[in-house]
Amino acid sequence: MRIVVLAGGIGGARFLRGLKQAVGPGTPEAGSEITVIGNTGDDIHLFGLKVCPDLDTVMYTLGGGIHEEQGWGRADESFSIKAEMKAYGVGPEWFGLGDKDFATHIVRTQMLAAGYPLSAVTEALCARWKPGVRLIPMSDERVETHVLTDVEGERKAVHFQEYWVKHHATVPAHAIIPVGAESAKPAPGVLEAIAEADVVILPPSNPVVSVGTILAVPGIRRAVAQTRAPVIGLSPIIGGAPVRGMADKVLEAVGVETSAAAVAKHYGSELLDGWLLDESDAASVAEVEAAGIPCRSVPLWMTDTDASAAMARAALAFAEAVREA
Amino acid sequence: MRIVVLAGGIGGARFLRGLKQAVGPGTPEAGSEITVIGNTGDDIHLFGLKVCPDLDTVMYTLGGGIHEEQGWGRADESFSIKAEMKAYGVGPEWFGLGDKDFATHIVRTQMLAAGYPLSAVTEALCARWKPGVRLIPMSDERVETHVLTDVEGERKAVHFQEYWVKHHATVPAHAIIPVGAESAKPAPGVLEAIAEADVVILPPSNPVVSVGTILAVPGIRRAVAQTRAPVIGLSPIIGGAPVRGMADKVLEAVGVETSAAAVAKHYGSELLDGWLLDESDAASVAEVEAAGIPCRSVPLWMTDTDASAAMARAALAFAEAVREA
Repeated sequence: MRIVVLAGGIGGARFLRGLKQAVGPGTPEAGSEITVIGNTGDDIHLFGLKVCPDLDTVMYTLGGGIHEEQGWGRADESFSIKAEMKAYGVGPEWFGLGDKDFATHIVRTQMLAAGYPLSAVTEALCARWKPGVRLIPMSDERVETHVLTDVEGERKAVHFQEYWVKHHATVPAHAIIPVGAESAKPAPGVLEAIAEADVVILPPSNPVVSVGTILAVPGIRRAVAQTRAPVIGLSPIIGGAPVRGMADKVLEAVGVETSAAAVAKHYGSELLDGWLLDESDAASVAEVEAAGIPCRSVPLWMTDTDASAAMARAALAFAEAVREA
Repeated sequence: MRIVVLAGGIGGARFLRGLKQAVGPGTPEAGSEITVIGNTGDDIHLFGLKVCPDLDTVMYTLGGGIHEEQGWGRADESFSIKAEMKAYGVGPEWFGLGDKDFATHIVRTQMLAAGYPLSAVTEALCARWKPGVRLIPMSDERVETHVLTDVEGERKAVHFQEYWVKHHATVPAHAIIPVGAESAKPAPGVLEAIAEADVVILPPSNPVVSVGTILAVPGIRRAVAQTRAPVIGLSPIIGGAPVRGMADKVLEAVGVETSAAAVAKHYGSELLDGWLLDESDAASVAEVEAAGIPCRSVPLWMTDTDASAAMARAALAFAEAVREA
């Protein structure tokens, strides 16, 4: 089976770990190929280096190098360089890169400077991490999510990471702008993977700044809408609140209520062939189906890999049911 | 007193530490200004980063951050990035950069990419290290010392660091080529410092690939030859062997015998107003003076800072004697 997942960072990565288990050796879907289209809208240049937080979170998580508790960055990390940067008076201080993580960004930046596109660089980095999926950035071109906000009394657009990591989404978000998206092209293989997929999954990633940014790259939304494969989404909202992160703030910025049903309708029936929401939101199934989107309720807390694998199996079963319907 | 020193790496840095002590608070020369013109011919781009080994050795040594036993690199260093590079299969492995050291190169590379010349970048880095001297690279332009050698049966020019660090100077050196030197300009302040100096010192740095490379930048040799200040050199050769490093190999490549007298004559009376050789080479004083270069023998082993300071005092006293003669 060919499975395509549009993924952001932590939520997408943890779902993918469950998906890998769900289609692992000994399962009915053993031998499935998973293609991950990764969000690069939160990429940032720091200290002259190209940092791709979401791609790295997927790569480290699936490759066994992730800092488990934190959900991002490397396990057993040291922070010599961060201390040195502070000693040199070179910022920003609010973005915490560890020494091992720096190595990834140095290798990536060196390859990009040598002329390799980000997709080729990502493939080269994955040659080490062996994530067990094909990880493709949504685009080889630079797309940067900016947030229109008020900082120190001034309305201005700041890089998403500044909004998210520096300000912890505590400043108002008036609009989310994927700068550069309108002129970006999907990376090689992205549209083909979606077109040839047996199932497309929107994991419980941020619907605005992760999946939304991927869909903002011209051609990708249409490819997802037009693929013959069932498209199954999993709600990142449970009981009216994001499972993690601050998705409620960016949903509000795009005028979407923070509820499992509202996010389903935000994606819309033109994209979704099925929507999974948490058991606790079962009362909303009817509302989603009324919008033309088949809906089921299942446990959606990714408490461990088994739980994530169960979610993945539910998504694949739902896709099968939709396909047969 | 305005003192100018043309310095390479370890030898130059240790001499400078002595010089600082020799003109420190409470000494007759307290308040002297030391300008160091640093060799950049052994600079190398590694992992996409600009590495300046000699400038950094001077900066770390005088700023209190040097790895004392090793003579280069940072004290209390860790090597996470080096291990990561190996895991990524990204070389070269033979150049050992520590994590703290990487931070310096990241900051430097970022500033260079932002358009600052190397001299401004060096000044910015020194704002942290406070080396107590004005450190200026010999040129803001790229000059790279290459060595014509035989590697695996093939005659070819390799980067000096490859010859020195990878091959430990065990492959033959047929020629030393300061690539780019002929079209390089001295960095801002270099010629002025030499012209306005009260004394110019050639410390016991490598006469070929350190001091020689600095002198190869058009205008610098003439400035040293023409300055009214006495120019005093200290022999890096004691008893027919280099004090450290592999200067004998590169001296041979330029057709100069490995002896204190031969190095003096290599610099020549048009550059030197005085030459200090080690007590053990006292028999060569007459040979140097016969070449028109005033010469004295003093202890030249930099066993500790006190010994280096004594050498610096000897050089300053010699300059004073030359000036009065």
